[in-house]
Amino acid sequence: MEAVLKDRIPVGVLGATGMVGARLVALLARHPWFRIAEAGASDRSAGSRLGDLLAGEEIGPLPEDVAALEVRPLEGAWSSPLLLSALPAAVARKVEAEAAAAGHLVVSNASAFRADPDVPLIIPEVNADHLELLERQKKRWPGGIVTNPNCVVTGLATALAPLHEAFGLERAVVTSLQATSGAGRPGPSAYDLVDNVLPLIPGEEEKISAEPKKILGTIGDEGLVPAPFALSATATRVPVIHGHTVSVSAGFRKRPSPEEAAEALTSFGSRIEGLGLPTAPAQPILVTHDPARPQPRLDRDAGGGMGVTVGRIRTDEVLGLSFLVLAHNLVRGAAGAALLNAELCRVKGLVEAAAERAP
Amino acid sequence: MEAVLKDRIPVGVLGATGMVGARLVALLARHPWFRIAEAGASDRSAGSRLGDLLAGEEIGPLPEDVAALEVRPLEGAWSSPLLLSALPAAVARKVEAEAAAAGHLVVSNASAFRADPDVPLIIPEVNADHLELLERQKKRWPGGIVTNPNCVVTGLATALAPLHEAFGLERAVVTSLQATSGAGRPGPSAYDLVDNVLPLIPGEEEKISAEPKKILGTIGDEGLVPAPFALSATATRVPVIHGHTVSVSAGFRKRPSPEEAAEALTSFGSRIEGLGLPTAPAQPILVTHDPARPQPRLDRDAGGGMGVTVGRIRTDEVLGLSFLVLAHNLVRGAAGAALLNAELCRVKGLVEAAAERAP
Amino acid sequence: MEAVLKDRIPVGVLGATGMVGARLVALLARHPWFRIAEAGASDRSAGSRLGDLLAGEEIGPLPEDVAALEVRPLEGAWSSPLLLSALPAAVARKVEAEAAAAGHLVVSNASAFRADPDVPLIIPEVNADHLELLERQKKRWPGGIVTNPNCVVTGLATALAPLHEAFGLERAVVTSLQATSGAGRPGPSAYDLVDNVLPLIPGEEEKISAEPKKILGTIGDEGLVPAPFALSATATRVPVIHGHTVSVSAGFRKRPSPEEAAEALTSFGSRIEGLGLPTAPAQPILVTHDPARPQPRLDRDAGGGMGVTVGRIRTDEVLGLSFLVLAHNLVRGAAGAALLNAELCRVKGLVEAAAERAP
Amino acid sequence: MEAVLKDRIPVGVLGATGMVGARLVALLARHPWFRIAEAGASDRSAGSRLGDLLAGEEIGPLPEDVAALEVRPLEGAWSSPLLLSALPAAVARKVEAEAAAAGHLVVSNASAFRADPDVPLIIPEVNADHLELLERQKKRWPGGIVTNPNCVVTGLATALAPLHEAFGLERAVVTSLQATSGAGRPGPSAYDLVDNVLPLIPGEEEKISAEPKKILGTIGDEGLVPAPFALSATATRVPVIHGHTVSVSAGFRKRPSPEEAAEALTSFGSRIEGLGLPTAPAQPILVTHDPARPQPRLDRDAGGGMGVTVGRIRTDEVLGLSFLVLAHNLVRGAAGAALLNAELCRVKGLVEAAAERAP
Repeated sequence: MEAVLKDRIPVGVLGATGMVGARLVALLARHPWFRIAEAGASDRSAGSRLGDLLAGEEIGPLPEDVAALEVRPLEGAWSSPLLLSALPAAVARKVEAEAAAAGHLVVSNASAFRADPDVPLIIPEVNADHLELLERQKKRWPGGIVTNPNCVVTGLATALAPLHEAFGLERAVVTSLQATSGAGRPGPSAYDLVDNVLPLIPGEEEKISAEPKKILGTIGDEGLVPAPFALSATATRVPVIHGHTVSVSAGFRKRPSPEEAAEALTSFGSRIEGLGLPTAPAQPILVTHDPARPQPRLDRDAGGGMGVTVGRIRTDEVLGLSFLVLAHNLVRGAAGAALLNAELCRVKGLVEAAAERAP
Repeated sequence: MEAVLKDRIPVGVLGATGMVGARLVALLARHPWFRIAEAGASDRSAGSRLGDLLAGEEIGPLPEDVAALEVRPLEGAWSSPLLLSALPAAVARKVEAEAAAAGHLVVSNASAFRADPDVPLIIPEVNADHLELLERQKKRWPGGIVTNPNCVVTGLATALAPLHEAFGLERAVVTSLQATSGAGRPGPSAYDLVDNVLPLIPGEEEKISAEPKKILGTIGDEGLVPAPFALSATATRVPVIHGHTVSVSAGFRKRPSPEEAAEALTSFGSRIEGLGLPTAPAQPILVTHDPARPQPRLDRDAGGGMGVTVGRIRTDEVLGLSFLVLAHNLVRGAAGAALLNAELCRVKGLVEAAAERAP
Repeated sequence: MEAVLKDRIPVGVLGATGMVGARLVALLARHPWFRIAEAGASDRSAGSRLGDLLAGEEIGPLPEDVAALEVRPLEGAWSSPLLLSALPAAVARKVEAEAAAAGHLVVSNASAFRADPDVPLIIPEVNADHLELLERQKKRWPGGIVTNPNCVVTGLATALAPLHEAFGLERAVVTSLQATSGAGRPGPSAYDLVDNVLPLIPGEEEKISAEPKKILGTIGDEGLVPAPFALSATATRVPVIHGHTVSVSAGFRKRPSPEEAAEALTSFGSRIEGLGLPTAPAQPILVTHDPARPQPRLDRDAGGGMGVTVGRIRTDEVLGLSFLVLAHNLVRGAAGAALLNAELCRVKGLVEAAAERAP
Repeated sequence: MEAVLKDRIPVGVLGATGMVGARLVALLARHPWFRIAEAGASDRSAGSRLGDLLAGEEIGPLPEDVAALEVRPLEGAWSSPLLLSALPAAVARKVEAEAAAAGHLVVSNASAFRADPDVPLIIPEVNADHLELLERQKKRWPGGIVTNPNCVVTGLATALAPLHEAFGLERAVVTSLQATSGAGRPGPSAYDLVDNVLPLIPGEEEKISAEPKKILGTIGDEGLVPAPFALSATATRVPVIHGHTVSVSAGFRKRPSPEEAAEALTSFGSRIEGLGLPTAPAQPILVTHDPARPQPRLDRDAGGGMGVTVGRIRTDEVLGLSFLVLAHNLVRGAAGAALLNAELCRVKGLVEAAAERAP
């Protein structure tokens, strides 16, 4: 292991050829700590050169050694202790469980295990301490599964965290205006989405309602206790390529003024400050005072796609406070989120532990 | 007057060359009761042939006599007792007041006078009875001004009306996803709106919050008493040509189930049933049970653009009920709204009264 | 048969549930001569109510009797002598051949048989006389197949026809900017097409190059002799819902001035003038002198979607003449084209002949 | 001057606040040779902080010292010997001439002087030698003006250059599908461009036809002799943010096969190889063999936005060869083009010469 940590740590990517997988590959290709040693995908892709399969993705050119990787099937043993997963939920349920059973640390973007009470659902800046749920997972398998939230929730829960901490969130009503890349490939057809809004994203509103409660929950003797606020969501799809916009109205025990809310967001004490995680943005939350922001095109790439931008903070005659949140769904909301979780696991010694478990 | 009523009633259009004005001209061109006798616009346009000025509008070919009208300036006396206004607010304040002072009945889409306590803000199906506010206006001028709501509010207030009546609206949180035609010409640039969402529409949220309270208010001895609910709004612009989508969460004194809400919407007893107004849709509210509706492209033209489509009616863990509303902003939300108001005025004898007042 | 002609003629629609099929159903629903008696689709759709399958199409409400039709499978005997086909090419090859073998007159939008030397490829205004190729088809089967061109070619060949007749077309270079509805369902994803141009439409350029030569060809003793001009095409897909724009540069034996070209286009003597075909537009070619036209949004619905708009006619220092052509790909280029062909067949007695052949 | 060359060379930017100016500022902010010392704009902007004026541009954060620059008016003396201009043509004609008269070297993206016989129109990789036209300019003023081509022409002429050299271009027919950022601010409205194609870009086709002849021309005793080919263009605007696509059909004296054309493009011997210009892409022309490329979204950022991608090279039955060209209109076609020209001027000693001329 010593040798491994001296050099870049080999990781396997599960689901390397989807839209999120491609971003993950691109982020790993330039990563200071990790290197892709294995890239798995469905049988249809297995055997092909990774670079060929990702040629049409908007990720720029890959280093030659990464492009040259031969994609392997998802089945069979993996040699890397750390596996990053961008699998679809249905496939993830089986493949990730098998990997955890084989002792791997699986850091996953899939929704398959997010709601399980012993599976940490992590935004490092917000609830890094929830990693301790991994202890409870040991009853299930020798390895572990760590997840990140849904692509809307990552931005939303990050923005709610400091407000909840300071003012006690009671209720929130949110409407999301989601980018098409959140639907993966192929996603909605141009025929259906150009000059249009799709008012339904199946399964999405349930995740948006449930996941923030887990993320902002606390860990007690009996495991995780969800935060006791109410949250209702309407999820829509709009003709935007990347960047989910969320319109939020929220009510708090102690009603903040817009200035107090802005101050809480700006001074948010990230739980990973000082850890030196390479993918962490300089500032997790950016408050914009330009009333015409945030906008997907102008703000999705803030902090290398890892920044969450909050704007138009104002009073609201129904719940008290309204604002808009924007984050890049493929980076902060998916590939970057998983990678940051993997970095957190590494500094917490979890990757090393997995390496020791490995055969 | 008798002769006039035998034939089509001559009307003047104030602001005939903007996007709303063009729709109004197109709707009037085929109207069974009214005919455009005068078309006014800014000095820049005055003197030109109406058909030439509207050549680039998406309104199809105009009848030869309408196309041949010479556009007149806004200033100066008008000969038609009934004037339909699609002026910008700033211009409307002066021009409409002068017309009312000269005895005309002005039916306006402009926001200039909407909030005035003696000016009726009418959606005929919802509050035709508010026309009686015209009595109070007589203190100001011999003529009168009748207005229709903002392009988001028309659909929203129509959908809220039967729910308020049946269940007592207390609070609503809404987020609008508005089409670019709502901004008129030129509106947002393609550079700013393609692959983007604009999170601010200046002045819009105030109108969305205020106007439904007036429309659903009641008329007492002291004039109009606004309905006492709270309503907060976030207004966004999306890359859609026509059709505003509104995401609504609402709380009621008597909380309805989704089925009860749908039933109230479907069985809505329009205040103009039986009046035979030519622009009134067969059914003012269409409830869709397709969870992927309403959509701007599929539903904006319902009822000739005058139908309001409500869908995805469901419970909401914060306020109680959530749903989406869609209406065509240029028709139901502007030109068609004004025209329907003019039709209502005619059957109420107000056009005839204006004709008698006229010089 | 007499009785049939008194009432509306029953027709069968092959492939009634695709995007072109839906348009065909909508056009037939209001047709003065024809009525849909049978609607066939793939086994997946068979057994369902036609109205339910078409609920998401942009075709407005269907009459109750049409909506209530039960969709039948493509296999098995059809009772209507006239069948209109909107099948995909691969399916059409088998199903249409069987129908022709069973004596039906098949009027098809599919490309399967377009290139066959004994199959007429018809734009009624241009080459109605090519119907006589049906005589040659009698060697193959008792029925017949009549086709219309590709969705780009209909507009293009219509515009080239009067120019070829008057000036002798020698060469043309065209680039198409095609709408997404031309790709059917699902067509390109929004992820691939928003803020983008797709520079390849597989198989399209070959059709654009070949079909105009057949349409503008002449019938000699040995059958059809293609027109001897050269035509090369580049076909691109742009973020437009309906309406194919074609940029054309053309060289002629007798080089016309732009004015002469405009005059030839405007005075085009349609081959179906006076036949009273209900779907024929008043004028097949509309020449616009507005230099900012034709545009898909403004011109695709000209003539009920059956008009071909030509604009920006100007000299060209390479081939001699350049201009742009626009037509609605789903109407003039597909459903309306097939329907107009069916109307032509009816007035030529071909539907009656098919009825006499039928069992 | 010695001191200046040791450190970064101060440059002035004329028109720093438009869309091209913003890109130029962003590129200069990270430039190894140049630094922005002066930023000028219209009187409306003068006096403001540059960073504030560019806050809404898609250029990412600016270094503090650049953001803090106070924008100056265009009038009045400039202290930097080298001025980079992103002015609109009408303003450029006056301001650039005055600057050249004052001894400055003006490297301009404006079209004002491009067609002047003594003004070099430069794509460094293609015709760096045309800089010698500056000698002829000395008759007009002590300074000099160097221009880069129109945003379509940069990609087009770069692609034509090796083909012309190898095979002798005789004729080309091109249709452009241009991005909205090419129109600057505000550019076409979303209302006009979403779900649409605009078939006219005023003045564009003349530039596309003329400029490649100058760029590929030769310098004789009498000055520049334009290349003697014919070129006709149709310029359209499509709903794309950045990246102009050009469909090209071309005829040559010696007709190349697609393979020979690809080989000539790939092995293109850039005229600036070995000069180490920082903005020059590793390879000026990228030939893609993916038939679904080039695409604006996937290829506009090749080579940092300075690469020209050519694809779908194939035979053409009219002129001989067809292909598509794509380049980023704001970078390769504007800001990057001007900057690369400035770099070329610097290595040719022209900046130093201007510094010596300066007061």
